Amino acid sequence: MFTPTQKEVGAPPTCLSPASVQNLDGNKDGLGRDCLRKPEQKLPECYGVGDPGAMFFSGSSQLSSRGRVIKWFWDSAEEGYRTYHMDEYDEEKNPSGIINLGTSENKLCFDLLSRRLSQSDMLRVEPALLQYPDWRGHLFLREEVAKFLSFYCKSPATLKPENVVVLNGCASLFSALATVLCEVGEAFLIPAPYYGAITQHVYLYGNVRLVCVYLDSEVTGMDKRPFQLTVEKLETALEGARAEGVKVKGLILINPHNPLGDVYSPGELQAFLEFAKRHELHVMVDEVYMLSVFEASVGYRSVLSLERLPDPQRTHVMWATSKDFGMSGLRFGTLYTENQDVATAVASLCRYHGLSGLVQYQMAQLLQDHEWISQVYLPENHARLKAAHTYISGELEALGIPFLSRGAGFFIWVDLRQYLPEGTFAEELLLWRRFLDNKVLLLSGKAFECQEPGWFRLVFSDKPHRLRLGMQRIRQVLEGISQVAKDAPSCHTQEPGDQRR
Amino acid sequence: MFTPTQKEVGAPPTCLSPASVQNLDGNKDGLGRDCLRKPEQKLPECYGVGDPGAMFFSGSSQLSSRGRVIKWFWDSAEEGYRTYHMDEYDEEKNPSGIINLGTSENKLCFDLLSRRLSQSDMLRVEPALLQYPDWRGHLFLREEVAKFLSFYCKSPATLKPENVVVLNGCASLFSALATVLCEVGEAFLIPAPYYGAITQHVYLYGNVRLVCVYLDSEVTGMDKRPFQLTVEKLETALEGARAEGVKVKGLILINPHNPLGDVYSPGELQAFLEFAKRHELHVMVDEVYMLSVFEASVGYRSVLSLERLPDPQRTHVMWATSKDFGMSGLRFGTLYTENQDVATAVASLCRYHGLSGLVQYQMAQLLQDHEWISQVYLPENHARLKAAHTYISGELEALGIPFLSRGAGFFIWVDLRQYLPEGTFAEELLLWRRFLDNKVLLLSGKAFECQEPGWFRLVFSDKPHRLRLGMQRIRQVLEGISQVAKDAPSCHTQEPGDQRR
Repeated sequence: MFTPTQKEVGAPPTCLSPASVQNLDGNKDGLGRDCLRKPEQKLPECYGVGDPGAMFFSGSSQLSSRGRVIKWFWDSAEEGYRTYHMDEYDEEKNPSGIINLGTSENKLCFDLLSRRLSQSDMLRVEPALLQYPDWRGHLFLREEVAKFLSFYCKSPATLKPENVVVLNGCASLFSALATVLCEVGEAFLIPAPYYGAITQHVYLYGNVRLVCVYLDSEVTGMDKRPFQLTVEKLETALEGARAEGVKVKGLILINPHNPLGDVYSPGELQAFLEFAKRHELHVMVDEVYMLSVFEASVGYRSVLSLERLPDPQRTHVMWATSKDFGMSGLRFGTLYTENQDVATAVASLCRYHGLSGLVQYQMAQLLQDHEWISQVYLPENHARLKAAHTYISGELEALGIPFLSRGAGFFIWVDLRQYLPEGTFAEELLLWRRFLDNKVLLLSGKAFECQEPGWFRLVFSDKPHRLRLGMQRIRQVLEGISQVAKDAPSCHTQEPGDQRR
Repeated sequence: MFTPTQKEVGAPPTCLSPASVQNLDGNKDGLGRDCLRKPEQKLPECYGVGDPGAMFFSGSSQLSSRGRVIKWFWDSAEEGYRTYHMDEYDEEKNPSGIINLGTSENKLCFDLLSRRLSQSDMLRVEPALLQYPDWRGHLFLREEVAKFLSFYCKSPATLKPENVVVLNGCASLFSALATVLCEVGEAFLIPAPYYGAITQHVYLYGNVRLVCVYLDSEVTGMDKRPFQLTVEKLETALEGARAEGVKVKGLILINPHNPLGDVYSPGELQAFLEFAKRHELHVMVDEVYMLSVFEASVGYRSVLSLERLPDPQRTHVMWATSKDFGMSGLRFGTLYTENQDVATAVASLCRYHGLSGLVQYQMAQLLQDHEWISQVYLPENHARLKAAHTYISGELEALGIPFLSRGAGFFIWVDLRQYLPEGTFAEELLLWRRFLDNKVLLLSGKAFECQEPGWFRLVFSDKPHRLRLGMQRIRQVLEGISQVAKDAPSCHTQEPGDQRR
């Protein structure tokens, strides 16, 4: 999501961090509009309507104007990653290279995955797999997906293959759903901070915008935890967007949440779904981290486990193997929806999001192997995630850095506001670049549309030696900064001790 | 491409053939606009501007209007395929099932492919293949693609990996190129008949239209062969479209041609490229059948073999394994372009068109195996294609049916106009349905935007026993029809004897 303020239009930013704009100067007025309030009230900005098209820059290119926007997104995401890819850390070949704690990938279980995917049942070549498929996905795969989701989401009734569409990842699914549910320029609500790439997923092809429901770290009023989403905040953002003439068609929920590592309780989930039903909003529930809950006490519940969906025709569930099976390069995602019009329209777009018949066969083999998943993969994966999380959270505690994390996902949402003397996004960007200069790649809060400068997402799902080195380098940067921001207003984030429940 | 006439808007067609509308009643006025001519002159319609959005029907769906159009395309393509999939021919299990001579797939070489793809070098699982890729495609694959195209396209200079983008098929590539090259509502020129699905590929996401350059079977004036494309016809269509206010941004060339089975001579190709350069048009050259030229005498030349491209920054070449390696279900396609802005913008969209790292590895293994390709696969594939073609063309000759085919591709363009007493599309549809009722699926000319009712595409790249049975069933239908159209105007298609050069 990008600011529609004039100063950003017409001149390309000179410095951009991965996944989002990082060159803002700390003037937050452009980032969203204050919600309905009396003039003298000082309330945080509570929503903002995105306008990625405002990033358009003219140039001598032979591309269309939207082609230039599309290319701009690519170029703007490059600084961090280009630097990283030119100088990737390798224990033997490049020990002084950059450690990537920015990309949300699970690098802890390649040994398990490699063994399973190399088994002889994985390579099957038969004519049907090499011919044009059913664009919804081969029936044998959709049957396995339905069984898999029924079991691992603990659905009250068995899920049905005809409600399943498979495609090459959830990025494609966001693109397809945005296009078939919205007209050009319409919008989805999304609580922010959020995984920033969704901005592009709904916009690049679909021309759909996001209306941010801004959450903040202060625990006041009804909020029991930092960055808490409530129905009231959804109502306010919806009302504000509508007052501005923005037609909102749906709500995106990420559960477990990226980047907060938070999960919604069944009661919250139900309340958000009821809110959506009241306003006839579609709900896209992104559950790509559903099997990456490594603390059982978190009590995660998939939306598919609810006894009754308030509006099943407008509830669309997304899952993929990228995160839960640590295979973002495999490109497998799936939609579950009872709405056959939506399933068919998405399937029609699957001509452009199809995956190989050979991979469809492999995924069916993997997903049907409940014994390996439940007895081998998940216990070991969760143990490794937990160990990595314990190590990183211990290090952060030792540094006196507050953070959020509840035992789900691959990342910790870290509060580095004490290192920004003025509390601006310019300082956040500076800190981000200091980390990169000291050979560790993180993502800063701006990439997630966080409204408070100073938050960073730190990915911990990596091998111990890389985590150790990454933390050493982070420590060096932070210790090198004079802590002029020590007197900044206190924040109500959870204490480190809370994180390891 | 669909007629924009009012009678089609608002009421869904009741009967549709695969890939395009089949319910037109033979009134051709709605299909295109007559080109510049004096009122009394009776010339064929020479171009037509498509407007797929005009197919929009309101309904009670929860989809957006474009979502309904997208779903409509799916539903409309279903009649033939749904009927086929419910009753597929199987030699043992369903010998009276439908024979599919409609889908352009090469079913002659599964044995060869299966052996090669099952070799131990094909299953490699390593971390880099399971992680987020470079969205242009892994470098190791782009290097192999560049070498492969350099060798098999006989390029004068070695092609470069940085000009290669890989993605999940040419359907996606049409979608991405349309979007990054055109604004909404702009258009590409395309000679018709053409592979009809391109209409959807450029429209569903990109909202780009096609301007048909209508070709016909009469050999008059400058034309030396039926359905011949000339620069004059391109100029006329471009001029006409521009006069109507349509902004044309590019030209699509399919070479070898689908459905004509024709190839452009190097001189023609050069002339078309010069035409495009004069008008600053991008050219998308679809060469997915480039290795399926089974008659060496045809003298096929890839555009990449030309000594000098008139406008390399606007020339974009498409290739895939779907046809030449008989693997439409594998979903592998590639773009070659010297225009780095175009390559980057397409790569940016490849987040939605990505293919598995495991498949990328397999494709690199396959494409680098020149020995197997040149010594084993291509000679055997071409011999089988030629044998199948010889059989079908012999059968057509025996039936006294004219046809076009020059020794490239998987299909013969068959002239059944003698079986349409009135020469209308309604009769064409009736004939198509008679074939289907007699358990053989073909595609009729309407699906390819052919302007002359009565042409059919017959796919011959199938096993002998299926071809025999399919031809028996076609013969039964044709013999059962009283040949009231025998006195229809003669046509100047090539004589059957010409086809086997």
